[in-house]
Amino acid sequence: MTTDNIIQPVRDLGAYTLKATVAPIKLNQNESPVDVDEAFKREVLDRVAARAWNRYPDFYPRDVLDGLGALHGLSGDSVLLGNGSNELIQALFAATVEAGTRVALPSPTFTLYAMMVAANGGEVVHVPLADDLTYDVDAWRALADRGDTHLLVCSPNNPTGSVMDAAQIADLAGRTQRLVIVDEAYAQFGPHDLAPLVAAHPNVAVLRTFSKAVGLAAVRLGYLLCAPDLAREIGKVKLPYNVGVFGLEVARVCLEAPHRFDGIADTLRAERARLVERLTGLAFDDVYPGAANFVLVRTPRAAEVFDALYADGILVRNVGHYPMLANCLRISVGTPAENDAVVARLTALLGAAPTAEAP
Amino acid sequence: MTTDNIIQPVRDLGAYTLKATVAPIKLNQNESPVDVDEAFKREVLDRVAARAWNRYPDFYPRDVLDGLGALHGLSGDSVLLGNGSNELIQALFAATVEAGTRVALPSPTFTLYAMMVAANGGEVVHVPLADDLTYDVDAWRALADRGDTHLLVCSPNNPTGSVMDAAQIADLAGRTQRLVIVDEAYAQFGPHDLAPLVAAHPNVAVLRTFSKAVGLAAVRLGYLLCAPDLAREIGKVKLPYNVGVFGLEVARVCLEAPHRFDGIADTLRAERARLVERLTGLAFDDVYPGAANFVLVRTPRAAEVFDALYADGILVRNVGHYPMLANCLRISVGTPAENDAVVARLTALLGAAPTAEAP
Repeated sequence: MTTDNIIQPVRDLGAYTLKATVAPIKLNQNESPVDVDEAFKREVLDRVAARAWNRYPDFYPRDVLDGLGALHGLSGDSVLLGNGSNELIQALFAATVEAGTRVALPSPTFTLYAMMVAANGGEVVHVPLADDLTYDVDAWRALADRGDTHLLVCSPNNPTGSVMDAAQIADLAGRTQRLVIVDEAYAQFGPHDLAPLVAAHPNVAVLRTFSKAVGLAAVRLGYLLCAPDLAREIGKVKLPYNVGVFGLEVARVCLEAPHRFDGIADTLRAERARLVERLTGLAFDDVYPGAANFVLVRTPRAAEVFDALYADGILVRNVGHYPMLANCLRISVGTPAENDAVVARLTALLGAAPTAEAP
Repeated sequence: MTTDNIIQPVRDLGAYTLKATVAPIKLNQNESPVDVDEAFKREVLDRVAARAWNRYPDFYPRDVLDGLGALHGLSGDSVLLGNGSNELIQALFAATVEAGTRVALPSPTFTLYAMMVAANGGEVVHVPLADDLTYDVDAWRALADRGDTHLLVCSPNNPTGSVMDAAQIADLAGRTQRLVIVDEAYAQFGPHDLAPLVAAHPNVAVLRTFSKAVGLAAVRLGYLLCAPDLAREIGKVKLPYNVGVFGLEVARVCLEAPHRFDGIADTLRAERARLVERLTGLAFDDVYPGAANFVLVRTPRAAEVFDALYADGILVRNVGHYPMLANCLRISVGTPAENDAVVARLTALLGAAPTAEAP
C-alpha cells in the first residue's frame, strides 16, 4: 500500500472538510458580508500589474513587515507574514511541537489547531469551556503552572465567541515559560486588543488575519507577532517567498490607510447586537452572542433548521458535532438584509420564545 | 529562554538566506528573464477584479485541479495545488517523514529539501553525484533496494542540471515501496517529461512549478501529481484555502492556453546552448551545461569573479559552499543581451581558454 508511507499521526487524522459551500445568503464562514470597494481593488491591481511577474517576490518585504509591526508598536522583526494566519499557526507548531509535546486548546475551538498539533506528533490537552461557554480561566492557570504545556487561546474563540482579556493572558504568560499563543482572528469584533502583550511577554505569540474584519478572505493573508528571537526560529520552517506579489501589494495598500476597513467591524458589531436581540426572541434553547462576527444558537431541531434554511438559500454552519455544542448552529453576521432574511425564516420555523408569548 | 520552546531539529537548522537580491542584470534565481505579456496580466487581473475578495477562495477548485491533471493524463484527484511547489514538498514531508525516516537526496541539490526533512526529524541520506555531476544511478538503485528510504530526485537538478530519465525513475519506483519524489521544477528545459510516471507507479510523486519555464515566480504557484490515495493523505496536512483568488485565476487563464508560454523554454534552451558555447571558450576549469535554465562554471577565482560581476550590475549565484561545487558559480540563462553582457564581462575578467588561445 502506498499510503503505508504516510506517518501514523497523519493517517489517523480526518481531512478538514466543508460540504455545502455555495448559497445566495452565505453565513457559514464568518466572512465580511460585503466586498471591498472598487477603488481599493483598482489600486491593488494597478500595482500588481506594474510588478514583474517573472521575478520572485521580495525575500524580506521589510516595508510590509515594519508596517504591520508598527500597527502594534512592534518592530518588523517581530512579524512573520503568511498566506492566511493558518500558515503561521502551522509554522509555529512545526517549530515547537514534536512527539510528546503538550498543547492546550480550548474545547470546542477551531478544528485545524488539533489537526496541526497531531500532525506534528504532539498531544492535545482539551480544556473545556465552562457551561456558559466562557473560558474556564482557573483550568488554564493550572495548566500554565504545570510549565510543560504550550497554551493556545483563541480569543474571541471560534465557534463560541468566548474571550480572555489582556490581564488573564498576561497572568498565564507570567506563570509559564512555554508559549502562550493567542489567535486573534476575530479581534476587531471583540472588546480586547491582545497584540500589545507581545512587547511585554517574550513567550506570547499573537496571530492576526486579513480574512475577517479586514474583509479580504480571498487574498489569503495573515501575520504572526512575537519576540524577534522566536520569529527568527519559526521563520526557519516558514517557506521563503511564501507570500506572492498579490498579497504583498494588498498589504501595502492596506498599510497606507490602516483604518480604511474599520467600518466593517463597526457595522458587524452593531448588526450582531441587532441579530442577537431578535434571535433571543425566538424559541431557541440558548443564544450565545459571543464577541466575534457570529452568533451561536441551540435548538433540538438544529439539523432540520439547517436544512430548511439551506433549502431557502441560506447557508449557516452546523457545529453540532463539536464538544458541548450538540444541536448548535453558528450564524455569521451578514448584511442587514441577510440578517433580516435569516431571522424571518427562523421565526417561521421556530416561532417566538415562550416567555415572549406570555408577557 | 523563549527559544527553548523551539524543537531541537529546528534549532539546529540554519535559516534559508539570500544575501544580494537586486541588480540590473539578475541571473541568480533561475527566473524567466522576461515578464509575461500585458494581455495575460490584464486577463488575470480583470478576472480577479470581478471576484468577491471578501469570500474564501474555492475549497476544492475542481476546474483547476482537473485542468492541471489533464495536462498530464491524470484526474484532478491526483493533483494538489500550492503557493509554489515548495509548499507541497513541505506537505509531502510533513505527511511522510517523522523521527528516523530516511530520505535520500542528491548531493548537491536544492537546500530546502534537507531543511524540510530535518525539520520533521527525518534523516537525510546524501547521495553524491558522480565526479562529472551526473546522477550515480547505481547508488540510487542500491538505496531503492534497501526498501526503507524515500528517494527524492530533482531532475533536472538544481544547481547542477543533472537528469535521470523515465526508465531510470521507473526502475527505482519498481524496486521500492517507499516514495520516489521527482522535483521537475526545471522539466521544460530538459530532455525528459517524468510526469507520465505517476499514472503507472503509485509511489511516484512529481512536482511542477509555475515559477521557472512558465515565468510566473511572483505568483507563487506549483502543484503535486501523485496517486489519488496518496494525494488525499498529503492533502490532510496541506492547509485548506491555501491558494488565493489570484493564484487560482492565474491557473485558469494559463489552462485556457496551456502552450501560451512554451516560447520561454524554447528561447532559454537555445540561449543556454549559445551561452555554454561562449563560456566553454573562456578560461574556466569546468563548464557544466546541465539541462535546466542555468549553467554552472568553475574557476579558482569564483569569489573575485562574483564580486566583479556584481560591481558591474550582474548578479549570479555563488554556489561554492555546496558539496562538490567548490569555486563554482551558477549563472541563470537570461535574455540574449544579458547573456552577452555576462560573457563580455567574464571574457574581460578571465580571458579565453588556453586551448582556444593556441589552436
